[in-house]
Amino acid sequence: MQIPDSLERLILEFSKLPGIGRKTAQRLAFGVLRYSPQEAENLANAVSEIKKRIRFCSVCFSFTEIDPCSICTDPARHHETICVVEQPNNIFPIEKSRVYQGVYHVLMGAISPLEGIGPEQLKIRQLEKRIEQGGVRELILATNPTVQGEATALYLQQTLGPQVAKITRLARGIPAGGDLDYVDDVTLIEAFSGRRSF
Amino acid sequence: MQIPDSLERLILEFSKLPGIGRKTAQRLAFGVLRYSPQEAENLANAVSEIKKRIRFCSVCFSFTEIDPCSICTDPARHHETICVVEQPNNIFPIEKSRVYQGVYHVLMGAISPLEGIGPEQLKIRQLEKRIEQGGVRELILATNPTVQGEATALYLQQTLGPQVAKITRLARGIPAGGDLDYVDDVTLIEAFSGRRSF
Repeated sequence: MQIPDSLERLILEFSKLPGIGRKTAQRLAFGVLRYSPQEAENLANAVSEIKKRIRFCSVCFSFTEIDPCSICTDPARHHETICVVEQPNNIFPIEKSRVYQGVYHVLMGAISPLEGIGPEQLKIRQLEKRIEQGGVRELILATNPTVQGEATALYLQQTLGPQVAKITRLARGIPAGGDLDYVDDVTLIEAFSGRRSF
Repeated sequence: MQIPDSLERLILEFSKLPGIGRKTAQRLAFGVLRYSPQEAENLANAVSEIKKRIRFCSVCFSFTEIDPCSICTDPARHHETICVVEQPNNIFPIEKSRVYQGVYHVLMGAISPLEGIGPEQLKIRQLEKRIEQGGVRELILATNPTVQGEATALYLQQTLGPQVAKITRLARGIPAGGDLDYVDDVTLIEAFSGRRSF
C-alpha cells in the first residue's frame, strides 16, 4: 500500500517547516485528516493569509500588518534607545517581559562568513541611517550569544561606536531557575567576571 | 507590541495540531513567515486538498483516494486474513515492514468507557459483516498494547471467536534494539511468559 498522493504531499510540506522531521510531519498530517473540512480550511487560510498580510516594517524590519509598525509609530516609546536584534521574532520575548520601552532594529541575520553573510547582507546600513538622522542616545546590542551574534555585536560596536554616545549589550550570566550543575563553562566564566556586589 | 492578528491566528491554528504547543506553533509560524509566497501557497493547498481528496475505504476504513482502497481490491493480497487495527495510520508501519500480505480492518478507535466509546461506536459491526460474507480464516488483533486496546481485543475475541477459525494477536516482548535496563515490568513479564526455545 502506497500512502495516498495528497497525504504524501501534505507530509512533505509539513516536513519543510523548521524542526519538523518526517515522523512529526506524518503525525501532523494524520491530525489534519481527523479535522472537519472547516477546520482544515481554517488552517489553510491562516497559512495563505499570512504571506499576504504580514510585511516587514520599513523602519525597524520587524513583522507588521501596517507600515511603519506599531512600535515605531508609538509616541510613548523611547525613540532615543534602539535595541538591535537578529530576527523579527526575537522582539516577542522582549515585549512579553515588558522590561523594555525603547524601539527596535532587526538586522535580519548575523555576520557569518561561512554562510556568505557579511555586514552588507544585513540591515546595518539602514541602522546607520537611523543614527545619522539624530536623536539616538543608546544602542543595546541583543544579538544571540553565539559566535555569529558576538561577531556581529563586535562589528557594530566598532563601526557605530563613534556615532552613538552609548553602546551596551545584554548581561551574561546564570539564567533564573537554572542549576549550577548544568551551567556551561563559558556562562560560568561570564557570570564570575560580571559579578555584582550584593 | 501585539503580535499581528494574522500571525496570532496562524499560531493558534498550528497549536491545534496534535502534540504542538504554543512555543512550537510560534516556531512553525515564524518558519512560514520566512517562506516565499509560493511556498506558503503550496502548504495551504496541501492542507486544503487533503480533506477533499482523502476518504475512508468503505470496506476496511483505511485512508484512500479511490474507494475501495488499493489493498482491498488487490487480488495478490491474502483476503482470508484480516489484521484489525485501531486507526488508519496504524497500517503504514505494517505496510512499510512488508511483513504482512493480508488485508486490514480499521476500528476507528478502541473501547473506552470513560470517553463514552463502546463497541457500537467502532466499526465492529462492519467487521462482523465481512466475516459473515465468508472466506475469513484468521483475524490478527493488532490493537495497541494499552488498557483500551487490550479491552477491545478481548471484546473482539469473545464476540467473534465462534465465527472465525483462528484469532491471534501480535507477540509481546522486548523490542529489537531495546535495552533491558529500560524495559518496563509488564513487558518483561510478557517477554518471560512468551519465551521461545532457542
